[in-house]
Amino acid sequence: MSYMIGIDLGGTNIVCGLVNEQYELLEKVKRPTDAAQGVEQVISKMAEMIEELVNRSGIKRSELVAVGAGIPGFIDPERGICLFSANLKWQDVEVAELLSVKVGVPVFIDNDVRMYVYGEAMSGAARGSEVVQGVTIGTGLASATVTRGELFYGSRFMAGELGHVAVEGETERCGCGLTGCLETVVSATGIVRQAKQALEVGRSSTLRDVYERGELTAAHVSAAYDEGDELAVQIMDYTGQVLGRGLAYSISLFSPDVIVIGGGGALAGERLFRSVRETLKRTVYHGYLENLTICQGELIDDGGVIGSAAFAKNRLGKSALQVNV
Amino acid sequence: MSYMIGIDLGGTNIVCGLVNEQYELLEKVKRPTDAAQGVEQVISKMAEMIEELVNRSGIKRSELVAVGAGIPGFIDPERGICLFSANLKWQDVEVAELLSVKVGVPVFIDNDVRMYVYGEAMSGAARGSEVVQGVTIGTGLASATVTRGELFYGSRFMAGELGHVAVEGETERCGCGLTGCLETVVSATGIVRQAKQALEVGRSSTLRDVYERGELTAAHVSAAYDEGDELAVQIMDYTGQVLGRGLAYSISLFSPDVIVIGGGGALAGERLFRSVRETLKRTVYHGYLENLTICQGELIDDGGVIGSAAFAKNRLGKSALQVNV
Repeated sequence: MSYMIGIDLGGTNIVCGLVNEQYELLEKVKRPTDAAQGVEQVISKMAEMIEELVNRSGIKRSELVAVGAGIPGFIDPERGICLFSANLKWQDVEVAELLSVKVGVPVFIDNDVRMYVYGEAMSGAARGSEVVQGVTIGTGLASATVTRGELFYGSRFMAGELGHVAVEGETERCGCGLTGCLETVVSATGIVRQAKQALEVGRSSTLRDVYERGELTAAHVSAAYDEGDELAVQIMDYTGQVLGRGLAYSISLFSPDVIVIGGGGALAGERLFRSVRETLKRTVYHGYLENLTICQGELIDDGGVIGSAAFAKNRLGKSALQVNV
Repeated sequence: MSYMIGIDLGGTNIVCGLVNEQYELLEKVKRPTDAAQGVEQVISKMAEMIEELVNRSGIKRSELVAVGAGIPGFIDPERGICLFSANLKWQDVEVAELLSVKVGVPVFIDNDVRMYVYGEAMSGAARGSEVVQGVTIGTGLASATVTRGELFYGSRFMAGELGHVAVEGETERCGCGLTGCLETVVSATGIVRQAKQALEVGRSSTLRDVYERGELTAAHVSAAYDEGDELAVQIMDYTGQVLGRGLAYSISLFSPDVIVIGGGGALAGERLFRSVRETLKRTVYHGYLENLTICQGELIDDGGVIGSAAFAKNRLGKSALQVNV
């Protein structure tokens, strides 16, 4: 048997999982990243976690054929380099080479959002679909596209920044340098910001108590939506409209079969999707919508690990030039 | 030597061109389509034009290895079928099979916009670039993407309808059934409509004379723009903004190296591009713009023919399954 290990390398935690050829997650370990200790420490920790997983699962060491790792930031998957990661404070780190030397099997890396979407496409909510558009909604928003089992990269591996298109009429500064980016609205952060700004100017809402205690989260807005709170409904509707307007372009340009929504924001589910679907009916040629499914991801927590393992399996044996742009 | 013939099958004319392996157009013939005479007549006419080109050029008949044809409408390039063409009034026509039987070489078909963009990518303004986004602006607007020499199709070969995303605040009914589609603004038709509607409500402009003679075209708006006519400047600026907002999504989702603008609307050139670039600076992450070229197509008239020939060469010898989604 052959096995892969997938790694979800986050700013807070490293999650490593052992995955079989059917993309089933068999074992999982989790450790704090402690990125401040430096690149060498983080790489060593990943190598230790890999050996621990192999030992614990009882597979033969020779049955581990490849390792994949999803990393937040700009990644060059062809050369296996993390070009820049704000979360890890990494620049030009040769992750694939450094880790591969330690564990003795090929290591493949990519951006964490791509890995998650790849997981949903190969083994999650979108398995069996030819063209998959994935969007993760968390503290920010990003997207990736998988066609017939291959990720779409674009020039310089930069395709997919749907979160950083400026939205008409929006005025919030974004960390990327622009004003009014889609993710300043469509993200957990964006939903909370909208609520705070409305409460600050005196809007009445059941959210006021939790806001004044300084504890307001997107989950509170979802809960208030369920109780029919007018402000919460308005925020969710508007957030869905902005996402829908962005997806309208994505659908017309990519013609996906499935749009999978992942990340913590996916938990909003139909509260958000209802408004997205209404917006799409008004903004997208109906021929696209006939065969399009919009759904929550299935692998919310494990998508990054499973996707990284599946990606490693896919890349194994391919020459660098076979990586699609 | 090997040669291909590319065909640009339009609602009005059929243009056939003989192209060598360096994608040079050697000979060209043009005939009225007369689509009303029926499928069989149009196919026969294309077959005759192919033989005429071969005879006139003096190449050996055996040196013609493939034929490509670009057709306006929904095409299934894998099966070689024109699913629907409003211009030709065709539905489910097996063009590739019908023409191939007559001329004895493989025939490959695709949508005319894809063929044009493929031509620009392989042999025109975007040759040598890895990720090419092409947009044609004529009576309507459509787009296509070529990555490393392969067209991007999406599900059901429907990727690229950038012209049919509804634009916020626009109220013009579109032929597709939606209201306010991008092409109701960004097209020759859209530019003329904007001018007419402004003149009808009494806006002063140097365009009034030609409008009242019933002769107003997009070229007149371009000419008035050059003279500093306030209405014309306003229309071009707004049209560029709407195009820029659409391209912002396209750039963030595809990360192209080059955006090639073709079709009659490309003749507006910097009158339109200036406003597009200004809009992109405000709406797209600057990292995309650093390496992005936005330019007019080079093959305005011959792009469809050269692109069809290049497409046929590319497809020759590939199995159906090798066509990228």
